[in-house]
Amino acid sequence: MQQPDVTLETIRGARERIAGRIRRTPVLESQTLNLLAEARLYFKCENFQEVGAFKARGATNAVFALSAAQLSRGVVTHSSGNHGAAVARAASLRGIPAYIVMPENSSPAKLQAVRGHGGQVLLCAPTLAAREAMAARVVAETGAAFVHPYDDPYVIAGQGTIALELLEEQPDLDWLLCPVGGGGLASGIAVAAKALRPSIRIVAVEPAGADDARRSFVSGVLSRCEQPMTIADGLRGALSPRTFELIRRHVDDVVTVSESGIIAAMRALWQQLKIVVEASSAVPYAAVLERRLDVRGARVGIVLTGGNVDLDTLPWFRAADR
Amino acid sequence: MQQPDVTLETIRGARERIAGRIRRTPVLESQTLNLLAEARLYFKCENFQEVGAFKARGATNAVFALSAAQLSRGVVTHSSGNHGAAVARAASLRGIPAYIVMPENSSPAKLQAVRGHGGQVLLCAPTLAAREAMAARVVAETGAAFVHPYDDPYVIAGQGTIALELLEEQPDLDWLLCPVGGGGLASGIAVAAKALRPSIRIVAVEPAGADDARRSFVSGVLSRCEQPMTIADGLRGALSPRTFELIRRHVDDVVTVSESGIIAAMRALWQQLKIVVEASSAVPYAAVLERRLDVRGARVGIVLTGGNVDLDTLPWFRAADR
Repeated sequence: MQQPDVTLETIRGARERIAGRIRRTPVLESQTLNLLAEARLYFKCENFQEVGAFKARGATNAVFALSAAQLSRGVVTHSSGNHGAAVARAASLRGIPAYIVMPENSSPAKLQAVRGHGGQVLLCAPTLAAREAMAARVVAETGAAFVHPYDDPYVIAGQGTIALELLEEQPDLDWLLCPVGGGGLASGIAVAAKALRPSIRIVAVEPAGADDARRSFVSGVLSRCEQPMTIADGLRGALSPRTFELIRRHVDDVVTVSESGIIAAMRALWQQLKIVVEASSAVPYAAVLERRLDVRGARVGIVLTGGNVDLDTLPWFRAADR
Repeated sequence: MQQPDVTLETIRGARERIAGRIRRTPVLESQTLNLLAEARLYFKCENFQEVGAFKARGATNAVFALSAAQLSRGVVTHSSGNHGAAVARAASLRGIPAYIVMPENSSPAKLQAVRGHGGQVLLCAPTLAAREAMAARVVAETGAAFVHPYDDPYVIAGQGTIALELLEEQPDLDWLLCPVGGGGLASGIAVAAKALRPSIRIVAVEPAGADDARRSFVSGVLSRCEQPMTIADGLRGALSPRTFELIRRHVDDVVTVSESGIIAAMRALWQQLKIVVEASSAVPYAAVLERRLDVRGARVGIVLTGGNVDLDTLPWFRAADR
C-alpha cells in the first residue's frame, strides 16, 4: 500500500470512501455534566458506531482504499480488541477473507465479535511479539494485505472523520479531547480539527499507568511503557514514530488521569448520558472531572471511543468487592 | 382542570405545547437484535428524554395546559419515581412551586432528582393511601393543582406524542409495543398510533408478577394486583377506569413476561444498543425475546421508557450473587 501523508484532504477522502458503510454517530449533551464542569461538553458517541467502536472508521477506510489486485488474497491484522472486528466487518463488506490474529486469552465476546463478522481467527501467545510474528507469517503464506491498527495513514485518516462530523455540528469548539493509546485516533482528529479550526486546543488524554504518550510528548523522544497498568485496556498500546510525529505537530497537550478518575468518569457518563461506554472512552472526560484542564466557560468536544464492555465485571463493582 | 377526551387532536396539541421543552428522542436499531428477532426492531429511546424518562412529556403538557390562575399556587403530585422529577422540572420551567409527595423509603437518587429540579419533597409512609392522603392535604392547604401520574387526559396526551414522533420516522410499522403500569403511556400511544395507522397492532406488555392489565383486559373487569412482585418498579401501578377504557378501545392485546425474561432483555439492550435502560423499559422487548408475539418479518416499534438505574445493583449481578 502507498503511504501518503495524513491531511485534511485525505481525511475528506476517507469520509467519502466510508460513507454509507459506517454510521454518523450522535452528539449528546447533559445539563448535569455541564453544570459540574462549568462548561458545555459535547460527547461524540462512537459507542454507537458499527462494531461498537470508532475503529470501524479507520479499518473501513483502509480496506476500501486497497485496489482489487491488492485485495485478492484478503486482509490480515492482529488485534486483541475492536480493530479486529472492524477489519473483519470491512472485509466482509468487500467480499474478501479476513485473517485476525488474536491472543489466546481473548474474551469469548471478542472472539465472537470477529467471527460474527466472518473473520477467521488465528490464536497466538498473548505477547506483542507473538502477534506480530504470526501476522507476518499469514502475510507470507496467504499474500493477504496487512492493516495495522493505527500505524497506517488510511486508518488514521478514517479516525479523523470523527472531527469532520463533530465540527460540522459544533463549529466553534474551543477544545477537543480524546484518549490516546497507539495514537491513530489522536493523530487523525488533530490533523482534521487543526486544519478546520486553527484556534482549537487538542488534548490527548491517557491513563497515568500507561503514560508513554505523555512522556514522549514532554521529552520529545519516543518512549514506551514496559508494563502498562490500567483498566483502560484500549490504551495500553504505544505510539509509533508516525503517530508520535503527527501528535507533536498537531496536538497541544497530553495529560494523564488516575485509575479512580477513569472509573468515576465512566460511571458518571453511564449515569448522566444513559449510555454504555468502555473504560478507555471515559479517559478524556476524567481529565475534566479531575480538573487536569481548565475548561470553564468553554465549549468542549469529547470523543467517546467505544461501548464494548463486559457487563458482568463493571469496575465499580470490582472496586466495591475488594 | 377540564377533563377532555384523549384524541389525535389533543395529542397534536400536546406536541405543540411541549415543543422545545422536551427532547425529540432518537430511534436506535441493532443488526444483532434484528437477526435474533427475525424482524426489524425500532427502539424509541425515552431514556434520553429530560429527567431520563418519558414522564417529562405528560407532566410538561399537563403543567403547561393549566392557566396562570389555576397555577398561581403551584402544582402537587405523588410519585416514587420519574413523574415527580418530571413535574418538578415542568413547574420550574413555568416558574411555579412544585410539591412532590414521596414515600420515605425513596432512594437518595430519586429524592435528589426531584430537588435538583427545584421540587419541594414531602415525605410520607410508603403506601398508596398515605401518598394520596398527603397529596390531598397539600391541595387543601396550598391550593396547588394536582397532576396525577397517569389518570389525567393531559398527561396521557403528552405520552402519546411518542407515537407521533416514531411514526413520522417509521410510518409503516406493523407493531408498536410498550410497557403498561398505570396505563398512561399505553393509552396515549395507542390513541395516536391507531388514528394515524389503523392497521398497526398495539401490544401493551407487563410483568407476569404485576398482571392487573392483562387480567382486566381479558375479563373486561378492572382488577388490581394486591401484591405486585416485579423488578420493573415502574410497572407496579394499576390501571384507572380512564386508562382501562382507552386500552380496551385502542390496544390490541396485553401480554405478560417473566422476571428472568425482563432481566435478559435489559442486559441485551445494554449490550447491543450500548444504552442504559431501566428494567421497566426492557419489558416490551422481553415479549419479543420470549416469543410471546410472532413478529417475524415485521417492522416493530418498541418504546424504551427510561434510563434511571441504580448502577450499583444491576439485576444480573444480584442474580449472580444468589
